[in-house]
Amino acid sequence: MFFRQVYEKGLAHASYVIGCQASQTAAVIDPQRDIDVYLQIAEQEKIRITHVLETHIHADFLSGSRELQQATGAELYLSDEGGPSWQYHFPHVGLHDGDTFMVGNIKFEVWHTPGHTPEHISFLVTDTPASSKPIMFFSGDFVFVGDVGRPDLLEKAAGQVGTMEIGARQLFQSLQRFKHLPDYVQVHPAHGAGSACGKALGAIPHSTVGYEKLTNWALQFDDEDAFVKALLEGQPEPPRYFAMMKKLNKEPRPVLPNGAVPLPARLSGDQLEQLRAAGTLIVDTRDKVAFAGGHIPGSVNIQNNNAFSTWAGWIIPYDKPFVLVTPPEQIEQVMRKLLRIGLDHIAGYLPDCNMWASNGRELVTLPQMSVHELAERIGSPDLVVLDVRNKSEYDAGHIEGALHVFAGYLEDNLDRIPRDRTLAVHCAGGDRSSIATSLLHRYNFTYAVNVPGGINAWIAAGYPITEHTAAPAKI
Amino acid sequence: MFFRQVYEKGLAHASYVIGCQASQTAAVIDPQRDIDVYLQIAEQEKIRITHVLETHIHADFLSGSRELQQATGAELYLSDEGGPSWQYHFPHVGLHDGDTFMVGNIKFEVWHTPGHTPEHISFLVTDTPASSKPIMFFSGDFVFVGDVGRPDLLEKAAGQVGTMEIGARQLFQSLQRFKHLPDYVQVHPAHGAGSACGKALGAIPHSTVGYEKLTNWALQFDDEDAFVKALLEGQPEPPRYFAMMKKLNKEPRPVLPNGAVPLPARLSGDQLEQLRAAGTLIVDTRDKVAFAGGHIPGSVNIQNNNAFSTWAGWIIPYDKPFVLVTPPEQIEQVMRKLLRIGLDHIAGYLPDCNMWASNGRELVTLPQMSVHELAERIGSPDLVVLDVRNKSEYDAGHIEGALHVFAGYLEDNLDRIPRDRTLAVHCAGGDRSSIATSLLHRYNFTYAVNVPGGINAWIAAGYPITEHTAAPAKI
Amino acid sequence: MFFRQVYEKGLAHASYVIGCQASQTAAVIDPQRDIDVYLQIAEQEKIRITHVLETHIHADFLSGSRELQQATGAELYLSDEGGPSWQYHFPHVGLHDGDTFMVGNIKFEVWHTPGHTPEHISFLVTDTPASSKPIMFFSGDFVFVGDVGRPDLLEKAAGQVGTMEIGARQLFQSLQRFKHLPDYVQVHPAHGAGSACGKALGAIPHSTVGYEKLTNWALQFDDEDAFVKALLEGQPEPPRYFAMMKKLNKEPRPVLPNGAVPLPARLSGDQLEQLRAAGTLIVDTRDKVAFAGGHIPGSVNIQNNNAFSTWAGWIIPYDKPFVLVTPPEQIEQVMRKLLRIGLDHIAGYLPDCNMWASNGRELVTLPQMSVHELAERIGSPDLVVLDVRNKSEYDAGHIEGALHVFAGYLEDNLDRIPRDRTLAVHCAGGDRSSIATSLLHRYNFTYAVNVPGGINAWIAAGYPITEHTAAPAKI
Amino acid sequence: MFFRQVYEKGLAHASYVIGCQASQTAAVIDPQRDIDVYLQIAEQEKIRITHVLETHIHADFLSGSRELQQATGAELYLSDEGGPSWQYHFPHVGLHDGDTFMVGNIKFEVWHTPGHTPEHISFLVTDTPASSKPIMFFSGDFVFVGDVGRPDLLEKAAGQVGTMEIGARQLFQSLQRFKHLPDYVQVHPAHGAGSACGKALGAIPHSTVGYEKLTNWALQFDDEDAFVKALLEGQPEPPRYFAMMKKLNKEPRPVLPNGAVPLPARLSGDQLEQLRAAGTLIVDTRDKVAFAGGHIPGSVNIQNNNAFSTWAGWIIPYDKPFVLVTPPEQIEQVMRKLLRIGLDHIAGYLPDCNMWASNGRELVTLPQMSVHELAERIGSPDLVVLDVRNKSEYDAGHIEGALHVFAGYLEDNLDRIPRDRTLAVHCAGGDRSSIATSLLHRYNFTYAVNVPGGINAWIAAGYPITEHTAAPAKI
Repeated sequence: MFFRQVYEKGLAHASYVIGCQASQTAAVIDPQRDIDVYLQIAEQEKIRITHVLETHIHADFLSGSRELQQATGAELYLSDEGGPSWQYHFPHVGLHDGDTFMVGNIKFEVWHTPGHTPEHISFLVTDTPASSKPIMFFSGDFVFVGDVGRPDLLEKAAGQVGTMEIGARQLFQSLQRFKHLPDYVQVHPAHGAGSACGKALGAIPHSTVGYEKLTNWALQFDDEDAFVKALLEGQPEPPRYFAMMKKLNKEPRPVLPNGAVPLPARLSGDQLEQLRAAGTLIVDTRDKVAFAGGHIPGSVNIQNNNAFSTWAGWIIPYDKPFVLVTPPEQIEQVMRKLLRIGLDHIAGYLPDCNMWASNGRELVTLPQMSVHELAERIGSPDLVVLDVRNKSEYDAGHIEGALHVFAGYLEDNLDRIPRDRTLAVHCAGGDRSSIATSLLHRYNFTYAVNVPGGINAWIAAGYPITEHTAAPAKI
Repeated sequence: MFFRQVYEKGLAHASYVIGCQASQTAAVIDPQRDIDVYLQIAEQEKIRITHVLETHIHADFLSGSRELQQATGAELYLSDEGGPSWQYHFPHVGLHDGDTFMVGNIKFEVWHTPGHTPEHISFLVTDTPASSKPIMFFSGDFVFVGDVGRPDLLEKAAGQVGTMEIGARQLFQSLQRFKHLPDYVQVHPAHGAGSACGKALGAIPHSTVGYEKLTNWALQFDDEDAFVKALLEGQPEPPRYFAMMKKLNKEPRPVLPNGAVPLPARLSGDQLEQLRAAGTLIVDTRDKVAFAGGHIPGSVNIQNNNAFSTWAGWIIPYDKPFVLVTPPEQIEQVMRKLLRIGLDHIAGYLPDCNMWASNGRELVTLPQMSVHELAERIGSPDLVVLDVRNKSEYDAGHIEGALHVFAGYLEDNLDRIPRDRTLAVHCAGGDRSSIATSLLHRYNFTYAVNVPGGINAWIAAGYPITEHTAAPAKI
Repeated sequence: MFFRQVYEKGLAHASYVIGCQASQTAAVIDPQRDIDVYLQIAEQEKIRITHVLETHIHADFLSGSRELQQATGAELYLSDEGGPSWQYHFPHVGLHDGDTFMVGNIKFEVWHTPGHTPEHISFLVTDTPASSKPIMFFSGDFVFVGDVGRPDLLEKAAGQVGTMEIGARQLFQSLQRFKHLPDYVQVHPAHGAGSACGKALGAIPHSTVGYEKLTNWALQFDDEDAFVKALLEGQPEPPRYFAMMKKLNKEPRPVLPNGAVPLPARLSGDQLEQLRAAGTLIVDTRDKVAFAGGHIPGSVNIQNNNAFSTWAGWIIPYDKPFVLVTPPEQIEQVMRKLLRIGLDHIAGYLPDCNMWASNGRELVTLPQMSVHELAERIGSPDLVVLDVRNKSEYDAGHIEGALHVFAGYLEDNLDRIPRDRTLAVHCAGGDRSSIATSLLHRYNFTYAVNVPGGINAWIAAGYPITEHTAAPAKI
Repeated sequence: MFFRQVYEKGLAHASYVIGCQASQTAAVIDPQRDIDVYLQIAEQEKIRITHVLETHIHADFLSGSRELQQATGAELYLSDEGGPSWQYHFPHVGLHDGDTFMVGNIKFEVWHTPGHTPEHISFLVTDTPASSKPIMFFSGDFVFVGDVGRPDLLEKAAGQVGTMEIGARQLFQSLQRFKHLPDYVQVHPAHGAGSACGKALGAIPHSTVGYEKLTNWALQFDDEDAFVKALLEGQPEPPRYFAMMKKLNKEPRPVLPNGAVPLPARLSGDQLEQLRAAGTLIVDTRDKVAFAGGHIPGSVNIQNNNAFSTWAGWIIPYDKPFVLVTPPEQIEQVMRKLLRIGLDHIAGYLPDCNMWASNGRELVTLPQMSVHELAERIGSPDLVVLDVRNKSEYDAGHIEGALHVFAGYLEDNLDRIPRDRTLAVHCAGGDRSSIATSLLHRYNFTYAVNVPGGINAWIAAGYPITEHTAAPAKI
């Protein structure tokens, strides 16, 4: 049996290639959209991808299943569980609880494990030439290392009221069943630390049934109600783009030809200016320090780091073209990150913002304030502290009097934010506040100022915070 | 806790980086000699390597522990078990059964697990912030996926008579103790499929205690004697260089500065000719097909594939310089493979054999014979079939009347091989026979001919083999 | 003024980017088909390509003018001289002798310089801000460094009887006019040493009018008839594909989208076997030594070296698909070389011939003979020496009794070559004989044997040749 | 004859490889210090470098002659003209006017052409197999395309009073001799546009004697005194490091082993802080925009662009170690640029300034002012405009009342600059003012503010300048 994990850091997403060396065939579980990585593994290992499997309709990434099917001729093996709203609307082999199928000598047994989503399935795998006992459980977003998949995404991201408690109760039942697996079975989930599909995922790539039974908080409950309460508490805000992913992963959509990564057109400074004048969103992916030093007026700073995909999903609309300011050596990487969440509709990119800054056009800086200046000015009626962290972070402690608006919800709450006072915008360490401050300037909040050190520098400098406040300050 | 496996295909060698994210420190277990891979991981993950651990004195690769210590300032944590002959002769923190130490929040518990070697230890690891229960067992060459470490290397490779049965019995006892580990504990060994440190290693990179108890052949025995017999049966010939590794890994030796990979000097055709005339071994690492089409007379073909390190260790002497014929784009990779087994003493390399083939010097071909020609000529008194596969392969079935000399033992058995008849040299599929035939020509066996299809093509064409013969044919 | 020569070794082809820094615009003269090189220069130098110029309808490469026009929006500036048969059949700005146009501050003056072809023009360039005097003459295939363009291609390659003498006389007149240019003017031709568009091109990339007047053989004649005689003598065989180039460069044809280099599909061994069974030509681009050691039966060896494009143009038909056996790291380079002469119709490539050699299929070797064996067997009625060099090389000296068939004309002369005797095939140093011998085996000349050392090794070993024979031996 | 120009943009420096294909030998003229480029050409072209030539003791780069000699075994051919102060103090073949030597079939004739320096020689080259007439003149810093070498460096950079007029007169005489060369001879100088070794070099890489006679301003004079006056007028400030180069190029010095480019050590944030605390100069090579957005306090911004080498030579002292803040993907390129002017003494580099900005340390921004703000505040007693351009640029027109201190002389003139007023620092387009403003902050000029648009943006916005003022404003 051949086993390979493919880990994509930007979405903390794990996919798997499971092969049978005797028959030189393989299955891929939950593939990412840029599928060249699987084609390369297949080539190196001299195996042919014959099966593409999904554990569920993903919310956090655009599945590459159809790209992989097209490129390899493999068949799609997808869940037909979960009821009428949870059916894939394109051809596939439908799977139900208890179904089994072989990939060469490797046996896959289907478990219906609802909770995170109603149609969620897991795969229990047996390496039949070696043993009749199962070796691995591919748990998707059901059981993570140290956590479980959150059941509240549908309600919060897709607006399906009432589904999160139903999901939580289904998850409890699924977990009872999981406990009956042998302790020695390996557990391979679809996500690692940093994913928005859970709240406390561990950094270790894989675990075992027995270890999770001992250490995973979600497997310590005997009482369903207590479990439901604990599960729904403290989940982070689900990224805005999750609703779109749910839809795109279920419905027919155009497929990237040959699984190739298309590069956006390179723009001249004048071409970019035309798009900008027409209101097109400019996303500047440079380092926050470089962005602060000079950027095209109105552009929004989403740095090309591990959180890029998620923040692109929060900020960039799916229904309008946008442009990038990205160094040429990073454009392929940025494009992959965008493709992975279906943001294919790029009008072009500018390799260097100085290319725009000619013909009388001048770059602007992003105003900055150190935590010491903030401490001096705090309390002044001219100044509002705007905390753009997650609600759970804010609740755990914040600068007294700070207004809280999560960076991802900023555009929905512009009327709550004063335009006539200095806005000292901060997050934990300066990344999200650079997004938020640049976004505020795009909406003409002239007095928005970034506090790049964030609350981390504030605390390190010994300034006080208000801890464990349940409700955010009102203005 | 941070976990990363580094897998080196050429020696089927797995090493591990285990880190504590809270303290940003890490341990490396059983590092390979070219250590840049660990330095890069440390840099990317922003962790500092503070501990270098070894499970035992390795026989199949030159440990990079001292390179890594020098480059990072980490301390060496090495076994002091196994008695006076098994002590490391350079400064280190000595470990004994039952010792524990911390790398940040990660607890390492030392188990003395002799058998493969007398001093062999394993590490039971607990991720203390998550649980007081162990999560992983780093088993070195004690327990592999589906196999156990062979105890016969010392006797066969290093000539220590009588040690292999003692080792086998120690291994049995160590395995009894292993069985008491909880089923859910992950097992991470130092080798995967293809390693010469066992006979039947699985291809899956990791396992669990429970799964191994169910499926590993070596854990199915209750009777020590039966286990010992089964264990010692059918082990492959241990590569010649293993004895040298044992020595180099135990004694002080020069350390590669900064862990850098030194590249050999590029030679001109005339420089190579001078070395050749002086008897220097020429190793041509090109594809066997290219070698057959033309090579420098007397050169030996060890292809740069996954078996390169092992065959280099069989063929290249440690006490004399040698030269390479290697395309420039592969020279770094070949050099790494050589460094990993301590073959640093390279006199230079020629990037293209055509550079030699001027000034009146002509390349020679390696004579070839198809299996059909062989079938026609077989039985003729002029022809001897020379089977250079492992003894266990020969025993499982061979061409009737074939003389068996394992390719690795060829130079010790030249007097057993006729010089006056056509030698049809074959292995399974043509790789080892290209080594053997070229080596025979180096020793002036003028009539040695390679059968590139090997016994695989012979069988595929329907020609007969003699199965399960215990003793090889005599001549 | 900005000046950059782009030199493509495979066709010894020079193209030029001439820019005006004040206006940030540039012209490209005689572009190659893979145009990314010009786009990169334009980007680095921050200039826009606004003009694409050709000196004439090229015979030896497929012009990238239309790719460049499409990618940049530049206008085509092409000759309208030469009469009705020599008109471009697609939209362009038509140029006549005496026309001038500006690219920014750079003045281009058109000279009609027929001879190589009837419509041939040259460009005399003046850097107007610096001086009113001309600085450079872009001579295309009119005047080379040390040679002039051959006027016999139309007759020999395109079958237009009687044109070569007319061309030679036109060339003489054009040269008289060239002599009136000031001595100090730089001369920048379209080809360097190794091109088939002349017979004696120098290796220096550029010259001056005065130096050519002193040293170029073609400028030493006062008598037109003597010049015509000297010019038409000893010209090498024009490659077969030249006729196709003439046509494709004149007529509308599909343009590579965005000037991108399309990569061929990767084939499996079984897919290649299907194509092979259907008679598809297999071109193996590996080193001749590797090809000799093992190749797919029936494949033809055209090595990926500087002569690849030319020999591909001789051997590969334009009206049938073909496949490649090429290492993956060279496939883009090989593809570029094929595109440059319009061989776009590739059915796919096999990265490794060993991928074919499974399922009972065996590679074959190319039989080889050293010059010493040849010397022993020469004179035997069983043996024919086949010399595949150029006629001029053969005439200058050959092995006595050798049959001469130029490698490029082999397929037209198969009936002149005996099938029942050993054919010792040689050229100068083994490259062309590898093409020829493999081609003969494709046509079932079972006894064709390659003499890899060629006549160079023959002479070096002291064997005799017959010098200055006018007529080749008959059989 | 083989000819190749190697052009290094950072110093606008041209070196040449001139080879004889018959003998497979070559000479290199005026090599740069990182010599791998020549070794690669030699390898590709299968030629051996046997001669290393210099036209003179260079002032603007550290010659790689001795590195190349060591790596290839070639002999050094250097001028012995110019008198006792101008002799090379290490072994070489000494050349005098009229000497000739052969490199294979290529003849080199030595011309003593003083002016730029007293020992300056040029090489007249004849391709003897082709002709007895010369083909090329390698003019070093004697004749450029459109300009001549400046004779004032010794006086200005090395403080040798009175030498510049002597040099100018020698140059006039040398030019008279140059005029006697045939018009058709190609001229290949050691520098192109942008070099500080002349004042008006053209962008075309090569010229001819005849064209220079027609167009080069310096060849239009018949009167020596008029020539001397014109020549010495308007020469740019010679970079400070020129004096050091003169010395290093004449005296014995350590040679880079194997011509390899040593990479500096990678520092941690804490290591850098230790060096910073000890006063070590920090050079931040990032884009000026990124530097403005955040940098380590006290660091100086020298952007890694084409002017990097020159500005590094102005700002970085030769007698103290310094550190770099440079992205890892640019460190090799930056290192090469430093080596080329002998700045080898680097204490290490920090790949990312954010690595420093932890542990309570905060980056600082570089204060910026737009030209509109400047226009509003101009005339206020609180504000001083500091113009850091070349004197010739200042003289051609500046902002009224601006204080002029050339950026390269800033550290010598700190006492002329007020510390108690806002300093609006500008240059032409923002590069030099970023150097100057960061340098002023290093010297605690707290009120220094960068005007990134510079005088270009000032003029574009329609604000007035004072033209043709001979004397700078006093304060």
